Amino acid sequence: QGTRDHPPAQVALRDRLFATVVACFKRHGAAAIDTPVLELRETLMGKYGDNSKLIYELQDQGGELLALRYDLTVPFARYLAMNKITNIKRYHIAKVYRRDNPAMTRGRYREFYQCDFDIAGQFDPMIPDAECLKIVHEILSELQLGDFLIKVNDRRILNGVFAICGIPESKFITMCSTVDKLDKMPWKDVKNEMVGEKGLSPEAADRIGQYVQLHGGLELIEQLLQDPKLSQNKLAKEGLGDMKLLFEYLTLFGITGKISFDLSLARGLDYYTGVIFEAVLLQQENDHVEEPVSVGSVAGGGRYDGLVGMFDPKGRKVPCVGVSIGIERIFSILEHRVKTSGEKVRTTETQVLVATPQKHLLSARLKLISELWDAGIKAEMMYKKDPKLLKQLQYCEDMGIPLVAIIGGQELTDGVVKLRDVATREEVRM
Amino acid sequence: QGTRDHPPAQVALRDRLFATVVACFKRHGAAAIDTPVLELRETLMGKYGDNSKLIYELQDQGGELLALRYDLTVPFARYLAMNKITNIKRYHIAKVYRRDNPAMTRGRYREFYQCDFDIAGQFDPMIPDAECLKIVHEILSELQLGDFLIKVNDRRILNGVFAICGIPESKFITMCSTVDKLDKMPWKDVKNEMVGEKGLSPEAADRIGQYVQLHGGLELIEQLLQDPKLSQNKLAKEGLGDMKLLFEYLTLFGITGKISFDLSLARGLDYYTGVIFEAVLLQQENDHVEEPVSVGSVAGGGRYDGLVGMFDPKGRKVPCVGVSIGIERIFSILEHRVKTSGEKVRTTETQVLVATPQKHLLSARLKLISELWDAGIKAEMMYKKDPKLLKQLQYCEDMGIPLVAIIGGQELTDGVVKLRDVATREEVRM
Repeated sequence: QGTRDHPPAQVALRDRLFATVVACFKRHGAAAIDTPVLELRETLMGKYGDNSKLIYELQDQGGELLALRYDLTVPFARYLAMNKITNIKRYHIAKVYRRDNPAMTRGRYREFYQCDFDIAGQFDPMIPDAECLKIVHEILSELQLGDFLIKVNDRRILNGVFAICGIPESKFITMCSTVDKLDKMPWKDVKNEMVGEKGLSPEAADRIGQYVQLHGGLELIEQLLQDPKLSQNKLAKEGLGDMKLLFEYLTLFGITGKISFDLSLARGLDYYTGVIFEAVLLQQENDHVEEPVSVGSVAGGGRYDGLVGMFDPKGRKVPCVGVSIGIERIFSILEHRVKTSGEKVRTTETQVLVATPQKHLLSARLKLISELWDAGIKAEMMYKKDPKLLKQLQYCEDMGIPLVAIIGGQELTDGVVKLRDVATREEVRM
Repeated sequence: QGTRDHPPAQVALRDRLFATVVACFKRHGAAAIDTPVLELRETLMGKYGDNSKLIYELQDQGGELLALRYDLTVPFARYLAMNKITNIKRYHIAKVYRRDNPAMTRGRYREFYQCDFDIAGQFDPMIPDAECLKIVHEILSELQLGDFLIKVNDRRILNGVFAICGIPESKFITMCSTVDKLDKMPWKDVKNEMVGEKGLSPEAADRIGQYVQLHGGLELIEQLLQDPKLSQNKLAKEGLGDMKLLFEYLTLFGITGKISFDLSLARGLDYYTGVIFEAVLLQQENDHVEEPVSVGSVAGGGRYDGLVGMFDPKGRKVPCVGVSIGIERIFSILEHRVKTSGEKVRTTETQVLVATPQKHLLSARLKLISELWDAGIKAEMMYKKDPKLLKQLQYCEDMGIPLVAIIGGQELTDGVVKLRDVATREEVRM
């Protein structure tokens, strides 16, 4: 349940998608690492809050207690701490496992790919953070998924807002998850949850509402830096200062047109400590697709300066910032697009089929195809002693093979091969 | 235990190895498929004989009973049967899991990559089988692992030998595993095991010994086809006829020089039904390596015509032949070679570092690097506001980055960039 086989057409499309993403990661100087699918159970426990119940555990068959990884971030932090690495820029594309309720049509599975880029190390503020946003911008532009928006916020600003609105620190994390719903429900409902479920006074909720409904750019940052209450909060001030710096860098990158400083962005994970961001696709107004694939965010990430320290015996911290590309959701969109366009994705790369028009020519075929393989040419033949020429040509059309190399008795005598273009039916002897 | 993290240098080397193997599979027209790491427990049970105890099982957390895949062949057969596919040429490179005793120095792990190419379908005899051997030959040649030998046999010939030596059919499989040890122990010890452990008479063992110690080429096949007893056995005769055909095809491929028809080759798995083969590296006589990496076979495979039928409700068979490249063992060899040669494997592909020689030039760096990224150039910069030029040049040397693009105050004024070759220290303004 919640897993699937990928037939050749899907793998071919996915490989194309991965190639774009990996090219971008490499363009930014990232190295690849790989970690086991299996982790010690204790490594994963206590890192995902309530979601820990979604972790797949292995049976105790003697030896260590194991579980399947839930994401790539916790194994990355464990890897850094274990190997005392304080400085790395890495990407990792691999499967992760969650005992969640699958929603296959929306690209949500129990086994799915994650696609992460992270920068670990003690650096000057916002330079790596800005690069993560540049990467999201590059990937979403290259994939031509339509218009998109990258929302940015900072956990320190959000916590500062909660603090000046009189919320006790113990409620910050649960407030984050309520605020995060503002992209799916109106403020009225979010306020109701704050008051009804989370026990806030209507006044406190309204005070929060005045802030978290704000979004904008540099001018909003300036405005909040002048806010008499918020600017008095140390954390918020730090966050706003860094946000201003981030927007300076993003301006130099020329990408602020797609960036929105959005105070309602909170993100679910506990471990974020600074900048957070999330990219969403914007539904075009002229979109009249019959069965639109509904997708949420297509990329997200943020700064997590405390996670590595949780795995270090001495608690030594390694600041990290990273981005995860929502590869499964993007794949659903691309797959849907291929289906509706009727485009046929080739599943093989074969350049030429070696064919014979008469019987008793298997030896000639085997000899020629062997020469082609040894010359590095992608070649196939049918595994029959005496296949009909029509069947061989049909196979080319089915598989999208562009050329046929034909050897009949005459060609053998003349020492030539007849090369036929499958689409145009043009032939040359060579 | 038995798993490992792969740091960037290992992933880079492994990716190079995979690229060679995948290029070969694609050259032969294979498509890629992917199946889940998780399989239903019942799918795996009863497919691996005694080795079933090595399967990792997942804890029963409600829902289906699951296990981690043990190889890629059983999931492939399950995939074919489930989707009623009767004809496919596919490759699959992915991790598999075995609760085995790890022997890390020899490249044996509990989580490891398998790298499989298989041809499924009802075809004329030995054409796909010959292609599998051609693939092994191409890959081992391209990887330049030194001299190698591909041993070939056929389960039908082996079973025929057992039959004419008076062994009951119930003992065929256990006899296979004893015969298979002939590459590691002398005949005397193998005979002892046959007599002592397997309960054969010394005479029966000797009769088997007369056959299984034979190896050669076409002339040996001809000789056995004339053998008065063996040629009377239906299975053996079929196997020998096919072996002759296989050698004809391999002659056309020009690879018989590295093929040995070896009657001691038996292979461990139960599901083989016809041709079997295994490639081994030959230790060169002038090999005086200080710590040689000990490796066994580096590729193996064979024909398994019954496996898919085990997953089909009506038992419909799909004949299959395939090869598995021993990627972990080959990786151990390559890694050892890199270590002893002192070669430095680059872990990133960065072409140019954007650097500044003075303070207060971060904006210039960010602007230039953004232009480079947008132009598809792999570029990095240090994440410091004011890094020292020497540190920037040192980073290039450490990471093998060939070029530095330097912008100082003068370059900014002149509207140029100074491009420096890290190795030769040559500089051009452009």
